[in-house]
Amino acid sequence: MVASAMPLAAKVPLEDPLIHLRCSTVLEYRRGRTIYSREQPSASVYLVIAGKVKVTRYSAAGQEVVLDIYQADDFFGEAALLGVCPSSEEATAFEDSRLMAWTGPEIESLASRQPRLAIALLQVLARRNVDLTSRVESLAVDNIKRRVARTLIRLSERMGTPSQDGSVQMIPFTHELLSQYVGTSREVVTLHMNQFRKLGFLRYSRRGMTVCRDAFQEWMLQNQ
Amino acid sequence: MVASAMPLAAKVPLEDPLIHLRCSTVLEYRRGRTIYSREQPSASVYLVIAGKVKVTRYSAAGQEVVLDIYQADDFFGEAALLGVCPSSEEATAFEDSRLMAWTGPEIESLASRQPRLAIALLQVLARRNVDLTSRVESLAVDNIKRRVARTLIRLSERMGTPSQDGSVQMIPFTHELLSQYVGTSREVVTLHMNQFRKLGFLRYSRRGMTVCRDAFQEWMLQNQ
Repeated sequence: MVASAMPLAAKVPLEDPLIHLRCSTVLEYRRGRTIYSREQPSASVYLVIAGKVKVTRYSAAGQEVVLDIYQADDFFGEAALLGVCPSSEEATAFEDSRLMAWTGPEIESLASRQPRLAIALLQVLARRNVDLTSRVESLAVDNIKRRVARTLIRLSERMGTPSQDGSVQMIPFTHELLSQYVGTSREVVTLHMNQFRKLGFLRYSRRGMTVCRDAFQEWMLQNQ
Repeated sequence: MVASAMPLAAKVPLEDPLIHLRCSTVLEYRRGRTIYSREQPSASVYLVIAGKVKVTRYSAAGQEVVLDIYQADDFFGEAALLGVCPSSEEATAFEDSRLMAWTGPEIESLASRQPRLAIALLQVLARRNVDLTSRVESLAVDNIKRRVARTLIRLSERMGTPSQDGSVQMIPFTHELLSQYVGTSREVVTLHMNQFRKLGFLRYSRRGMTVCRDAFQEWMLQNQ
């Protein structure tokens, strides 16, 4: 069974926080620009309006761990609800991006007046929690090859465009980014990606990367 | 720097959800009893009144991953807010325990009438997210010895009793439980625990385990 938070979403009619949130000023960030960093910590919860944002953590030894790539309608920086920004966290625009931002007290004030907003945000955080828990499970028990496969399945579910033949078209995530997501070296990711490519699970094209998700899911079932 | 969600808690005056939650029937579970399982999934968010509860996930290959040990005033089972229980998750009474439980719709209904409850729960989930993110970071970049050290620091912060000499008294977590928390075998945990014991960071006593947290934190700084 492939752990994923995605199938959960369909089971209950979830609240949509965007209906209840008052618009804030739209912030624009060109690709590669820093949104917050260890030097410039954030006190805001962000909503992606357009584009993509990469959020990373830095270990004490300076190793980068990619927490996630957030896209339109995703929130990030939710630690601002606690009045803090984890000191080792950074967010950068992965593509040209437009964001809205609210401070922790602003969110509290809006949610106090609109309980449906609070419930919608509770569901956003609960979903993220389920997702992070699946990631903890994968990092604790999966070997690197399974971690790479699970990451490709998850990213294709979250941000891929399905084709008619059942494969999923994705932007070209670099092997370095994947290695920072699964916690290994770029060289090891390249090794596994080449093996998956030879198996026909993965194709590189002009538009990016094509992931045969069904083949990966079947492989996960066969290789436990 | 040792990643930990604990110092964050002190920075803002957080809402206490317990002030706002209406009491539910108290459920009693003897040590070892199942609260929910893959066969009996839960639709509730639980609050620990007394005792301790172990929540685990099972990988596709049947490996157990300990997500956390929850104690008095901790919530667990928050996926019920999404109307689901992750199918591979189980909760068992780690000690004789008393719990309260609310279904997802009950929590929604209470939170709609009491916005402060919703905000309090938002902060609980945001804190858990920060904590899970630190765990993802550790699993992605730490070697097993650092994971064991970080786990002992975290558990001693969460559920230890500080002594006058700065050490922390803890219940005796088995090496098997620690191995299921850090994602390795019991034998490897025993190897590292013996090394830490020889370094004087760890003592076993009649009451349980004594952890010299300062020594572990210093060791983490020196061994990156």
